Amino acid sequence: MNGEPDLRHHGDTEVCGGMADFAVNVRTGTPPAWLADRLRASIADLAAYPDPTAARQAVARRHGRAAGEVLLTAGAAEAFVLLARVLAPQRAVVVHPQFTEPEAALRAAGHPVERVVLGKDFTFDPGAVPASADLVMIGNPTNPTSVLHPAAAITALARPGRTVVVDEAFMDCVPGEPESLAGRLPPGVVVLRSLTKTWGLAGLRAGYVLAAPSLIARLAEAQPLWAVSTPALVAIEACSTPEAVAEADAWAVEMGAERDRFAAELTGRGLYVVPGARASFLCLRVPDALGIRALLRQRGYAVRRGDTFPGLGPDWLRVAVRDRAADDELLEVLCDLGI
Amino acid sequence: MNGEPDLRHHGDTEVCGGMADFAVNVRTGTPPAWLADRLRASIADLAAYPDPTAARQAVARRHGRAAGEVLLTAGAAEAFVLLARVLAPQRAVVVHPQFTEPEAALRAAGHPVERVVLGKDFTFDPGAVPASADLVMIGNPTNPTSVLHPAAAITALARPGRTVVVDEAFMDCVPGEPESLAGRLPPGVVVLRSLTKTWGLAGLRAGYVLAAPSLIARLAEAQPLWAVSTPALVAIEACSTPEAVAEADAWAVEMGAERDRFAAELTGRGLYVVPGARASFLCLRVPDALGIRALLRQRGYAVRRGDTFPGLGPDWLRVAVRDRAADDELLEVLCDLGI
Repeated sequence: MNGEPDLRHHGDTEVCGGMADFAVNVRTGTPPAWLADRLRASIADLAAYPDPTAARQAVARRHGRAAGEVLLTAGAAEAFVLLARVLAPQRAVVVHPQFTEPEAALRAAGHPVERVVLGKDFTFDPGAVPASADLVMIGNPTNPTSVLHPAAAITALARPGRTVVVDEAFMDCVPGEPESLAGRLPPGVVVLRSLTKTWGLAGLRAGYVLAAPSLIARLAEAQPLWAVSTPALVAIEACSTPEAVAEADAWAVEMGAERDRFAAELTGRGLYVVPGARASFLCLRVPDALGIRALLRQRGYAVRRGDTFPGLGPDWLRVAVRDRAADDELLEVLCDLGI
Repeated sequence: MNGEPDLRHHGDTEVCGGMADFAVNVRTGTPPAWLADRLRASIADLAAYPDPTAARQAVARRHGRAAGEVLLTAGAAEAFVLLARVLAPQRAVVVHPQFTEPEAALRAAGHPVERVVLGKDFTFDPGAVPASADLVMIGNPTNPTSVLHPAAAITALARPGRTVVVDEAFMDCVPGEPESLAGRLPPGVVVLRSLTKTWGLAGLRAGYVLAAPSLIARLAEAQPLWAVSTPALVAIEACSTPEAVAEADAWAVEMGAERDRFAAELTGRGLYVVPGARASFLCLRVPDALGIRALLRQRGYAVRRGDTFPGLGPDWLRVAVRDRAADDELLEVLCDLGI
């Protein structure tokens, strides 16, 4: 794609051995010991085929949904592919900047994609979506901008004949999840969730789709048999208990305080940080971001380039929020570089 | 599907808690301790996204192929779905009886399927496949018949404009794998392999496709991002070493001897066992097989019904080979039932 962003570029390829990782948005120190113990114990059960029943029920309970409204998937990435394959949109719209896999999956399935690119501060106006769009894909909170859209702005998109897919992979960064649609699931709305970031399970492939039972059944028909592994099912069940949700919420509060401090420090140095960040990363505009990224790499710090996101460009970076010590280290290196 | 076999029925649903399992063909006592140790160790690395590079190279080395001829998949089940999605057959032929997922995946992708149903003793004559078939799917050795087709019979199917997919999920039951096409990969031939049965990893979802690099690239494009989990990658790499292949081969020799003894015992009681069994299960014809299956279930023994396989019917059962003590127990119960 000449002059087009590489939609298949992801943060994990930005990190080489030994680098301090500000490129991938996975919570530090994860999976927690209690979860790792459960996963190690699940290895004893691998000879049997996976049975998703208990995990599916646990997810349904966690969001106050029926089991028939839940499809477990091998990460949100599989959910994008299943949706792209099962839906036959006449006019698919992807709201950018956002995670690029939804658009990549639609294109791979042969569907043309129109982009709605958000303007200043990346806030969302539902009126920007063409009335005849029958599929709209949006992230909330949004990767890479960290902006949280009001639930009302997303439900305003719903109408007969249209499917609205909300990628809530980072929603558990927001304490209490007030803007989540997982518990409400208005007609025509599909919610995607992931265990990857908060629980440190990027390597396990664990996520799920919440949608009307009729769509869930169609997605299940398109899904490979036994798609979610036994360890992933164990993780999904374990992370859906009230205790686990409370643990994630406590982390979100703590992470949020550090994120706001980190953002204030960066802003204090004259950098533009997209305001209202609510996820576990910050989106920065800085002249010659790719040059700065290269200098940071030399010092052993990986940050995510912004130019592969439609709607950003060569002046953008995405920086993960780590703990205070790690974030301060990065601030110091930026200071050394004259930033 | 009225009067049609339920292609989505699988042996794992035949086993309830506490039953002796002769329905699922996974090797007993697996995964072995050394492999379980490696898998438990991999839990520490789950925060990172999976990187398939090393596992892919290990598979390539194991079969003497190039890395570009290998696609790692979440079990053979994912491979069937990817092939069904990527290939656009005008005339798809599935050779039956065989594992039903290839046909189910083709139908789910909207492709009509013709069946070539093998006759007496389930040996394969390539001439039975219509000349204009541009996709042929066959199992070797075959689930559920346990018959091993000569490699030459399968390579005879290959011709320009036709893709021949060989499901070799049970090939490592055959010492030395003389009829495998994995190491030869003639033009137009696609080989599927699985770690599920020999290594006891049904719950992990680990398999791979061997094919020409151009087809592998198309399959990869249709595959969800990060499709194979880190523990599955660890397993694939570990089970592809010369030591692991030798361990599997030694097991295949031992299992084969017990299989042949078990088959002789059953034949000695006047049952028809499909001759030439080479996989880790036996296919039996016995009047009122479903009635016998029901009686066995009452006694706590699960065997696989045969009527859901096209080309078999209500007089057929598939019985896994276990160790001598377990197989003798089943023989005794059959004796009690007057068989």
